[in-house]
Amino acid sequence: MRQGHQSWVFPSKPVIAASAAIGGPFEAKGPLAEDFDTLHGDLMMGQDSWEKAERVLLEEACDKAIAKANLTKEQIHFMLAGDLMNQTISANFSARTLAIPFLGIFGACSTSMEGLALAAQLVDSGAADYVLAATSSHNAAAEKQYRYPTEYGGQKPPTAQWTVTGAGAAVVAKEGSGPRIQAATIGKIVDMGLSDPFNMGGAMAPAALATLETHFRDLQLPHDHYDLVVTGDLGKVGHSILSELLPNHNVHIPLDRYVDCGMLIYGDNPQVWSGGSGCGCCATVTYGHLLGKMKAGKIKRMLVVATGALLSPISYQQGESIPCIAHAVAIEA
Amino acid sequence: MRQGHQSWVFPSKPVIAASAAIGGPFEAKGPLAEDFDTLHGDLMMGQDSWEKAERVLLEEACDKAIAKANLTKEQIHFMLAGDLMNQTISANFSARTLAIPFLGIFGACSTSMEGLALAAQLVDSGAADYVLAATSSHNAAAEKQYRYPTEYGGQKPPTAQWTVTGAGAAVVAKEGSGPRIQAATIGKIVDMGLSDPFNMGGAMAPAALATLETHFRDLQLPHDHYDLVVTGDLGKVGHSILSELLPNHNVHIPLDRYVDCGMLIYGDNPQVWSGGSGCGCCATVTYGHLLGKMKAGKIKRMLVVATGALLSPISYQQGESIPCIAHAVAIEA
Repeated sequence: MRQGHQSWVFPSKPVIAASAAIGGPFEAKGPLAEDFDTLHGDLMMGQDSWEKAERVLLEEACDKAIAKANLTKEQIHFMLAGDLMNQTISANFSARTLAIPFLGIFGACSTSMEGLALAAQLVDSGAADYVLAATSSHNAAAEKQYRYPTEYGGQKPPTAQWTVTGAGAAVVAKEGSGPRIQAATIGKIVDMGLSDPFNMGGAMAPAALATLETHFRDLQLPHDHYDLVVTGDLGKVGHSILSELLPNHNVHIPLDRYVDCGMLIYGDNPQVWSGGSGCGCCATVTYGHLLGKMKAGKIKRMLVVATGALLSPISYQQGESIPCIAHAVAIEA
Repeated sequence: MRQGHQSWVFPSKPVIAASAAIGGPFEAKGPLAEDFDTLHGDLMMGQDSWEKAERVLLEEACDKAIAKANLTKEQIHFMLAGDLMNQTISANFSARTLAIPFLGIFGACSTSMEGLALAAQLVDSGAADYVLAATSSHNAAAEKQYRYPTEYGGQKPPTAQWTVTGAGAAVVAKEGSGPRIQAATIGKIVDMGLSDPFNMGGAMAPAALATLETHFRDLQLPHDHYDLVVTGDLGKVGHSILSELLPNHNVHIPLDRYVDCGMLIYGDNPQVWSGGSGCGCCATVTYGHLLGKMKAGKIKRMLVVATGALLSPISYQQGESIPCIAHAVAIEA
């Protein structure tokens, strides 16, 4: 049910019946390693291309989430998935393997919460009993497509981010036990004129701000309503910008309750510059680490704000700035 | 509300309050020219790149549809859009211009009906009062991205299709007058192992069959329920294949009531080989020509089955076959 201009509240509070997170070898060395269901030791995942390797991650995340929910794929009514690859091939080919009715989505790194919001909406409205929301990214596949050949070894500035090799999936259900989805806010594009693809966090921070402002206004909630507000993958640079923007715009989220998935996934590792990014970042951290903390009773209410930089190499080469977006989903234990 | 495994019926019958179709110079020479709201004489649309030109088409289609519905863009709750460009930049940048809360979707040439189905679902469930569903394609931008440089003048086989330069948009509303959306069926991926990107119609025909079979079964409708069954863009080749497949699979749609958007848009022009294709094909033919015929009382009930070939140049180069999908939307006068 719509509330305000761009938010939904879900009176039935759809359940996240299960979720799964799959990671690669670099993620296995990070501080959240224990929160992954499976960690691959090989960046190729036994495939002959990075693109096919990404597909393995996504299929494994979907299979795992469905199995953990004690369901079969035949019981899932719809699958919502997308990824960073051109024409979202990771999602398309995974949907072929899973043979679940498929709605392709694209929101770059905001895809995870776009999918979870729509999944909750479909379940809450009776359009489905079980919906799978999933997304993935692969460091080498993304580098190859968006930036330089990895063999070239191009230097990057400290504002750059490291694309996560990982996939996350969640099964949203009408009934059952598990964390419940209360509400969602769908973002508008925010573009402050930044055009540096090596500073996505800086470009995306204002989109996260806009969605947070709207979320609290639409739902008429106090700014300290959530135990935890999590942004998708702003990294250290974007986290620091948003931490300044919030009080300046009178959004008084207690800053000790604000974290970013791009900072959590690799901790203080300087090799990742500003932090993690990619569709798999917010998805694995939320569906692995954060929902794990929620189940352990350490978080009661959280708002996950997945941010996306909706550029392409072509739009960048043609001198365009970066259109950014953020979608927020409120989850309660 | 869900009916069967993968269909929705919409008890409130959301209204297509208005729709718009914008085309390019080649479409202006076709038999459906009069059904477009605007036809551009220049393939560049006054821009300095084909990608930017496509954006003009999409923005014009959205603006026109909103204006024809006597609404302002501030009244539209959500925009669902996607296109063929990498990272769906036409949709992203149009959503930036329009500043409407944005849900990015991708279904290749099935995007039009994926968007219309989700728009109807959001309106029917009370998640929105007005939703904009839109998509676009541009012949030269698509050729450049998917195939050869146009300057190269590569020869094509007679099974190839011509990407439509055009955009279509529809405003779906809770109330008002206009054609009404009764139901929708969300497709599964069908992949029969075809891998020739110059024979999309052949690859996609089985996906259209699967969705048609499911639609009639889920909704328990007789096969002659619709005045007109329209496929997205199978072209002559795919149309002929599906016309054979249907009776063989005991789907007895009267074949004189079955047409294809890819055949309608350019008529018998041999320059387009098997027919039109691209996100803009089904969108402009449905939102321009077919809804026009419905308003003129010539069609009462139609089922639009938009087909999509969910490949990418990379998946093709890596030897993959083409995963195909079809989404169906039932519209009644």
